[in-house]
Amino acid sequence: MDYEDFFRAELNALPDSGNYREFAELERHRGAFPRATCHNGDRDVTIWCSNDYLGMGQHPKVLSAMHEALDRTGAGAGGTRNISGTTHDHVLLEAELADLHNKEAALLFTSGYVSNWAALGTLAARIPDCVVLSDALNHASMIEGIRHSRAKCVIWNHNDLVDLESKLAALPADQPKLIAFESVYSMDGDIAPIAAICDLADRYGAMTYLDEVHAVGLYGPRGGGIAEARGLMDRLTVIEGTLGKAFGVVGGYIAASAELCDFVRSFASGFIFTTALPPSVAAGAAASIRHLKHSNTERQDHKARVADVRARLDAIGLPHIDNPSHIIPVMVGDPVKCKFISDTLLREHGIYIQPINYPTVPKGTERLRITPSPVHSAQDVEHLVAALEHLWTQCELARMPIAAQ
Amino acid sequence: MDYEDFFRAELNALPDSGNYREFAELERHRGAFPRATCHNGDRDVTIWCSNDYLGMGQHPKVLSAMHEALDRTGAGAGGTRNISGTTHDHVLLEAELADLHNKEAALLFTSGYVSNWAALGTLAARIPDCVVLSDALNHASMIEGIRHSRAKCVIWNHNDLVDLESKLAALPADQPKLIAFESVYSMDGDIAPIAAICDLADRYGAMTYLDEVHAVGLYGPRGGGIAEARGLMDRLTVIEGTLGKAFGVVGGYIAASAELCDFVRSFASGFIFTTALPPSVAAGAAASIRHLKHSNTERQDHKARVADVRARLDAIGLPHIDNPSHIIPVMVGDPVKCKFISDTLLREHGIYIQPINYPTVPKGTERLRITPSPVHSAQDVEHLVAALEHLWTQCELARMPIAAQ
Ligand SMILES: Cc1ncc(COP(=O)(O)O)c(C=O)c1O
Ligand SMILES: Cc1ncc(COP(=O)(O)O)c(C=O)c1O
Repeated sequence: MDYEDFFRAELNALPDSGNYREFAELERHRGAFPRATCHNGDRDVTIWCSNDYLGMGQHPKVLSAMHEALDRTGAGAGGTRNISGTTHDHVLLEAELADLHNKEAALLFTSGYVSNWAALGTLAARIPDCVVLSDALNHASMIEGIRHSRAKCVIWNHNDLVDLESKLAALPADQPKLIAFESVYSMDGDIAPIAAICDLADRYGAMTYLDEVHAVGLYGPRGGGIAEARGLMDRLTVIEGTLGKAFGVVGGYIAASAELCDFVRSFASGFIFTTALPPSVAAGAAASIRHLKHSNTERQDHKARVADVRARLDAIGLPHIDNPSHIIPVMVGDPVKCKFISDTLLREHGIYIQPINYPTVPKGTERLRITPSPVHSAQDVEHLVAALEHLWTQCELARMPIAAQ
Repeated sequence: MDYEDFFRAELNALPDSGNYREFAELERHRGAFPRATCHNGDRDVTIWCSNDYLGMGQHPKVLSAMHEALDRTGAGAGGTRNISGTTHDHVLLEAELADLHNKEAALLFTSGYVSNWAALGTLAARIPDCVVLSDALNHASMIEGIRHSRAKCVIWNHNDLVDLESKLAALPADQPKLIAFESVYSMDGDIAPIAAICDLADRYGAMTYLDEVHAVGLYGPRGGGIAEARGLMDRLTVIEGTLGKAFGVVGGYIAASAELCDFVRSFASGFIFTTALPPSVAAGAAASIRHLKHSNTERQDHKARVADVRARLDAIGLPHIDNPSHIIPVMVGDPVKCKFISDTLLREHGIYIQPINYPTVPKGTERLRITPSPVHSAQDVEHLVAALEHLWTQCELARMPIAAQ
């Protein structure tokens, strides 16, 4: 077999299906985010699709904590958590996370992806005869973790309580069960009925595993996520989150009982056999979490900016999914137009929004996923909406009826 | 089922088998490494088991590159590689890595673990009917990747060319094959017969995948690893490495043909659906690689220090595995004594060496895995050897015949 030929053929098939990804090469400028230099073509752009939702990746407290830790301890951790790689900064961060979610313990991973993969993989594999009930729109990292466990997996329709209940009821009462779902789904921005899912979990004796990756830092009085905002944190068995989105750094974690965290710590290959995060990353994330526990300004400004963009889109009739979160999916519904709009925004308007096409979202629902942040100015919004309006006309895309002003 | 009871019972079973891990909580001091404060008991210790093999995690060039990138771009990347997370620093680092291994391209991952898991998982799953020939002592991350692919996996005896050949010969000539192995095996410190494995790969039409995690930065005129030292880089299909050990930061990568890297980039879930490494991490790793491409001082000092420790151990007859690498496994052969020596070294001698017990190594081969570095002083070596001698006597452990001085 000619391996290179095979790779080339597989790659050549991608552009046809619109799936070949070209990465925009960006250079963010500290203090000037959402501004960046785009090195494909060397131009200044405004980023409108970052998951640094609150701009915390630029926050002076985060940066000074990272500088301080670099000066204090050096660059890397130098080992796995077990072999010389557990630093004081890791321990402090885990305490900060346990406190954030009001759980006994927390466990750090190198990313949110690895936290889902390793935690779900370990729990579902090691709890004898465990069956996982997985929301149909769960993130790839959860799916891979469940798949990895080789446990039985039952998929229930997205956010559908009736379907979840019928699937729980169909299982033997004494079989161990784990319901895995997300709070904010990042492509549509809809939010799970967490309380009702916990009610079902109680009724059917299931554990609950909630991915709050797109919610931590953003919701709840201390940034504990949707579960905190709704007063439900104590009802969840595991809360999983990332340090790479609203907290602005990198890394992932679970928060749960001391026993559960110790169990995953002791058995998860993806936790054990890998170099720990750099202490400076841990220190930066801890500073970010600490700040957002006490400051609501970023969350308020975020909410206001999101509302502002939504209102402006409504005013010109641009179709976007109405949802209760901070994610604004502007619907194009055509992969070629979606890519064209994205390219033109970049080239002619200095606006960077990555197009979201199949398979990330279903065909016919291609979109621009806009994530306003507190660091976008009123002029940024103005500029974005004007550019979109211009392109909508140019592409002859449908508009919504415009609400009476 | 009472889940908490189950976790507790499983954890309670661990201390009996000597497998319950207690993490030493360390605080390294920049510029003073291998010195650290150990927060379990608050004492100053010298670390003798770090994988920051060359002390690059303390190197001024690495630290200033990280400070500079923090000041220039901020903390995190703010997105996945595809959605706003590819920064200029990532692209520069990938170019540095491709050049290091003299390959067309390189692809970054969040860790060496993820690079093995995602790259092997993707290649073995997507190449139709691929069979993986995996060395029996391959690292957990490779095993999980192969397992994840659900491809057929044939395990060959560790570093055994006869066994590998017989297993290759037993497969249909036209079946796609991937031989996965490591250069330096980190627990015994032995090194694979890379050239002979490549010969077999050529003869039987197999791809080769070499994990150089414990060799990059350390071997070869530019730190390209054992394959570079032996002039074999062009014979390997994929070279995989880490940025978290000799390079002193964190992250992982593969280097290979442009097609292969693009293939993994386009299909690997563990690459696609996760936040990119912080630009400061990429910049620090690039600075480390760049430095070690041009400077041999660290490699020479490292070699000298390793030889020094070996000679001193030989002089007092302490048994250690004789191997051609930088890893010195001092054999205790008893899990309880191994843990006792490690605890006593920490408590009474201020020396931190994590004990390595089953299942990381086979029962009866429990050991102290010592990793000397250029930043250990002659006095550090003196102190280490004296402490080990003292404990060897105290534990009534066997010694080797002492060579004529
Ligand atoms: C729902 C969800 N879970 C987990 C992750 C992975 O988190 P991380 O980026 O920290 O790996 C992501 C996105 O990256 C996500 O969208
Ligand atoms: C042989 C081998 N491969 C891969 C890894 C994983 O690399 P990383 O620590 O960067 O995740 C390790 C150790 O951690 C290892 O020993």
